Amino acid sequence: MLIKLNQNAGNEVLGLLIARLTSLGLHPCVSSDGTHTIVGIEKELSKEAMKEISSIGGIHEMLPFSTPWKLCSRAFKKEKTQITVKGVTIGGPEVIMMAGPCAIESEEQLRSIAKQLAKARVKVFRASAYKPRTSPYSFQGMGVEGLRLHKLVQQEHGMLIDTEVMDVRDVEVVAEHVDIVRIGARNMQNFNLLKEVGRCGKPVILKRGMSATVEEWLMSAEYIMAHGNHQVILCERGIRTFENSTRSTLDLSSVAVARQLTHLPIIVDPSHAAGRNDIIPALCKASVAIGADGLLVEVHHTPDTAKCDGKQSLLPHELAQLVLELDAIARAMGRSL
Amino acid sequence: MLIKLNQNAGNEVLGLLIARLTSLGLHPCVSSDGTHTIVGIEKELSKEAMKEISSIGGIHEMLPFSTPWKLCSRAFKKEKTQITVKGVTIGGPEVIMMAGPCAIESEEQLRSIAKQLAKARVKVFRASAYKPRTSPYSFQGMGVEGLRLHKLVQQEHGMLIDTEVMDVRDVEVVAEHVDIVRIGARNMQNFNLLKEVGRCGKPVILKRGMSATVEEWLMSAEYIMAHGNHQVILCERGIRTFENSTRSTLDLSSVAVARQLTHLPIIVDPSHAAGRNDIIPALCKASVAIGADGLLVEVHHTPDTAKCDGKQSLLPHELAQLVLELDAIARAMGRSL
Amino acid sequence: MLIKLNQNAGNEVLGLLIARLTSLGLHPCVSSDGTHTIVGIEKELSKEAMKEISSIGGIHEMLPFSTPWKLCSRAFKKEKTQITVKGVTIGGPEVIMMAGPCAIESEEQLRSIAKQLAKARVKVFRASAYKPRTSPYSFQGMGVEGLRLHKLVQQEHGMLIDTEVMDVRDVEVVAEHVDIVRIGARNMQNFNLLKEVGRCGKPVILKRGMSATVEEWLMSAEYIMAHGNHQVILCERGIRTFENSTRSTLDLSSVAVARQLTHLPIIVDPSHAAGRNDIIPALCKASVAIGADGLLVEVHHTPDTAKCDGKQSLLPHELAQLVLELDAIARAMGRSL
Amino acid sequence: MLIKLNQNAGNEVLGLLIARLTSLGLHPCVSSDGTHTIVGIEKELSKEAMKEISSIGGIHEMLPFSTPWKLCSRAFKKEKTQITVKGVTIGGPEVIMMAGPCAIESEEQLRSIAKQLAKARVKVFRASAYKPRTSPYSFQGMGVEGLRLHKLVQQEHGMLIDTEVMDVRDVEVVAEHVDIVRIGARNMQNFNLLKEVGRCGKPVILKRGMSATVEEWLMSAEYIMAHGNHQVILCERGIRTFENSTRSTLDLSSVAVARQLTHLPIIVDPSHAAGRNDIIPALCKASVAIGADGLLVEVHHTPDTAKCDGKQSLLPHELAQLVLELDAIARAMGRSL
Repeated sequence: MLIKLNQNAGNEVLGLLIARLTSLGLHPCVSSDGTHTIVGIEKELSKEAMKEISSIGGIHEMLPFSTPWKLCSRAFKKEKTQITVKGVTIGGPEVIMMAGPCAIESEEQLRSIAKQLAKARVKVFRASAYKPRTSPYSFQGMGVEGLRLHKLVQQEHGMLIDTEVMDVRDVEVVAEHVDIVRIGARNMQNFNLLKEVGRCGKPVILKRGMSATVEEWLMSAEYIMAHGNHQVILCERGIRTFENSTRSTLDLSSVAVARQLTHLPIIVDPSHAAGRNDIIPALCKASVAIGADGLLVEVHHTPDTAKCDGKQSLLPHELAQLVLELDAIARAMGRSL
Repeated sequence: MLIKLNQNAGNEVLGLLIARLTSLGLHPCVSSDGTHTIVGIEKELSKEAMKEISSIGGIHEMLPFSTPWKLCSRAFKKEKTQITVKGVTIGGPEVIMMAGPCAIESEEQLRSIAKQLAKARVKVFRASAYKPRTSPYSFQGMGVEGLRLHKLVQQEHGMLIDTEVMDVRDVEVVAEHVDIVRIGARNMQNFNLLKEVGRCGKPVILKRGMSATVEEWLMSAEYIMAHGNHQVILCERGIRTFENSTRSTLDLSSVAVARQLTHLPIIVDPSHAAGRNDIIPALCKASVAIGADGLLVEVHHTPDTAKCDGKQSLLPHELAQLVLELDAIARAMGRSL
Repeated sequence: MLIKLNQNAGNEVLGLLIARLTSLGLHPCVSSDGTHTIVGIEKELSKEAMKEISSIGGIHEMLPFSTPWKLCSRAFKKEKTQITVKGVTIGGPEVIMMAGPCAIESEEQLRSIAKQLAKARVKVFRASAYKPRTSPYSFQGMGVEGLRLHKLVQQEHGMLIDTEVMDVRDVEVVAEHVDIVRIGARNMQNFNLLKEVGRCGKPVILKRGMSATVEEWLMSAEYIMAHGNHQVILCERGIRTFENSTRSTLDLSSVAVARQLTHLPIIVDPSHAAGRNDIIPALCKASVAIGADGLLVEVHHTPDTAKCDGKQSLLPHELAQLVLELDAIARAMGRSL
Repeated sequence: MLIKLNQNAGNEVLGLLIARLTSLGLHPCVSSDGTHTIVGIEKELSKEAMKEISSIGGIHEMLPFSTPWKLCSRAFKKEKTQITVKGVTIGGPEVIMMAGPCAIESEEQLRSIAKQLAKARVKVFRASAYKPRTSPYSFQGMGVEGLRLHKLVQQEHGMLIDTEVMDVRDVEVVAEHVDIVRIGARNMQNFNLLKEVGRCGKPVILKRGMSATVEEWLMSAEYIMAHGNHQVILCERGIRTFENSTRSTLDLSSVAVARQLTHLPIIVDPSHAAGRNDIIPALCKASVAIGADGLLVEVHHTPDTAKCDGKQSLLPHELAQLVLELDAIARAMGRSL
């Protein structure tokens, strides 16, 4: 159940409400939809409890939900959420191209790739300073120094920048440096990290976990929203199956299913799903056609010497060519790119 | 290894060759690519064996392959295979719409649906007389009487007709009645059935098994080809995964991957993958965008009373509307529909 | 719903009943539990229909079921089914060891392996004359000649023999030669084959399909039973998952789950699940401990030159040693081996 | 490659070595096997580099590895690792029973359950103060207060206690309170958390991720070891598959496979895999028979009112009965319980 407070409801009302709900054995979460403070709880209150809660005053409405996800549901908000950062709108008519290297390796590398992508309608320049690596002995990312370079190079190309955050202790510094914070597939159910990005004030790309159902994916978005941050962008990136011709199996149906259930923008990362660059253009086309609001594509200027995931990276000029082909499909869909 | 005979090589040469290969412990399969007789064997022959085989005479060339699939590989045939039946070409520039009810229920039902589909650019009218049902107590299909109705109604609408065959004993009668024979997902590795349709003389739609890898799917196509029938159409229809918001997970990557490996046409059946009709239009769009040569969609005029799979069926007018939207995407891809 | 006829009910009653049910749009299946003829239908009849059906006379009882499987359910038959063939009882206190080579290769091979297995408490000598092979160019089995050898060698060792049947046209000849007929994983939903073995009069080992749920597995057993054969032995052999250190993932939970749902005997085939022989002993121990009624293990005297699946075969003396270790666990479970 | 230093090698040698490896673009990790300091790197060094590194002096040996996991491999350490805490040895001949409620709910609850388990040969009392919950609105655990209660109640029953840690910021306080730290399935690839428990000084139970391969599971163990903590206990708890009669599919083969690859102790958690208590006894028996070094089982005195996972919990007296049955199997295996 969601309890929406009046616009002018003060902290005292909120405090009384929280205390009352807690005394009922509930675990209220507080966020805001921009105009109203919203308090979420797991279950529907009984009629008696609702009556008693109402008597506190300052309550706008009490919204019941049949689904375990509430704030991110279509039932809570009918129209699609649009997230606008520095003039770029994710979730609007335009399909947003996000691209860049897997890892930040050097200033020169970022500069070289960014220069070419800025000319290819890329709106968000992705690159990671912290890398989740299967082996403890592998390159773990440049860390804060990488964040600094990311921001430094941004001054030249002007694209938005996004990066992955893996550790609750890094959320603050990451949010200071980039425009969009990204939660990787392995951390989709790192609930404390979700809570922290719920408080970070920047839009969050939430990748679907490799073995997460659509419902669990939405519940993780709900975590971020319930802890204060309604600017969540869902990102499908493939699930684990028996099929081994691709690294994961890109589940494009999930985009269509999630679209029915939530108002949040949904993007697709075909690079990590495929793990091979030859089918990335085809997967991008399918993603645009199924209604994705954006694409997250790995691009590297020298894939053979990339510190990670070179095999799945496109070259900058391949991306530029692909963008033209995607634009045609976006237009056939009544959108642009 | 594939051994291609000279065009004028007679049965004597073929007999000698088969005898020699068999004596080497091999299991040769004989087919034809339209101009040459081709004999396939599992492994590469040794130099000595090749020399000896050559001495039989009548051999055009001996083609080694690094993959277990040979006849269906791009290495064997570079250009895409086009299969033309009564003026309809599958695998050409046009994306072919195949649609119809899950099961043949009555003459009236077939006539009613066919009438509307014929006006909606549908080229192949699908309907099944034999139904693989999980329960022995469920409707098992109308059988031969259904085949007769299918053919009867065809005289009015003129679309091609296709139907599923489940039993080796039914291949002959099915091939007599329909234009295209279909192998369902549960029978993708029913190898004796594959051999029989390899001898049936009609194009075959081969659905991917629910737990089949792309490689196994191609190997099943190879079975049909190796037993004489090179007119195989691959059909992706979803694989089994943990995700339960859809009945199966449509693996569109497999279309892109298979495209790299084989010259055969590839179509997509979104209906059985989704198991729900609300996301069928989105899945169709993605299928066209990823490069499918056709779509196989379930349509029923009264889904609520359908004998099977009503939940995943579109209404005829919904399909007609969808075709217009798909045409726009096909055109953006340089194709039509 | 199951309708049990009186013991003395004649064909006329059965005919009337079938006609009446068919006229209601149902698809009745007829079998026998040894004493009573049983007619199964998919749904519960309405009160009116039940009253009318009763008026036919000759009906012993009408049993409603909440599950889609009926004849194989614990609700239909409480006590475990025991299947006895030539003095060997499957489903009783003894855990039955079934072992042998994947494929029948020669008389010498069968004789050599059988001799050693007969001394190692093996009760059923498995070997296949028909082989489902992924490639059309691979050895497809010795066919009828293999069946003949299987039976011939049996005269020396005296163990029961079982073999796989893949084709509806082979059911009769297979049932003539062996004591137990086996349906492989790829054919678990080859429904026409299930119907045929339902009429074959020999016990049937039904392997679980690679992507079949426990419920679907039971439904396939129901097919065999509904078509007349109540002697079905379920066999878990691994399911397809993302894990690749084993060929399939042996789902031992399914044995425990199926045990709750059905009275049929359940055995385990660890060889095809693992695809590697080093963990077969461990998997056999776990299978006995979870309550399997038997084991189906591949054994070959010269695995390196086996025509198929050599990698997963134990040597005869390894099996003999394993049997001793399994016996200890069986005894700890209050059984023997 | 692992580089083992001499026992008397000082910090200066270590410093020089690290500096040299880093300058080669490598990412060395430092730990100790109890007697020697060990430096791990991802790749094998070239002969030249090895020669140069040797010249630093103080190096005992340089060990190449063909596998990506090194410290946890059988190649590094042949004999099984035994982890002894307050007289309880995990990885020795005894199969260790670990049991307790999912979540710490109250002092009374802990006391009531612990009292009964202490009499039932349970050696480790499990209970969680921090709970990973799919919904933000669910009970999230009692936190530090829960840890305090866990330790308080321990003074009465004397069993070892273990609890889950989910947040890098909680590792220190958790390690202060409990004997064994647990990493849950959702955090198996929370690499920063693995690094922190690598420094915590307490044995760590590492649960396999729901979509993790055996190889990835070992790599996560390697993370903990490479960061200083060689006391890692692997715990199989089921993987995500299409099968839905159980919450996850317990992959007992993984225990046998991991046993071949690593010297670390391996235990099994059947409760989270099954998600239903009726098959827990059967799964426990199979786990002991396959060679698990311990079991982690959920027990609750009032499952119907448990704050989480009541459906999969055994009652204390059911566990006591089960222990007797498991002991019989352990003895048949030459172990005890």
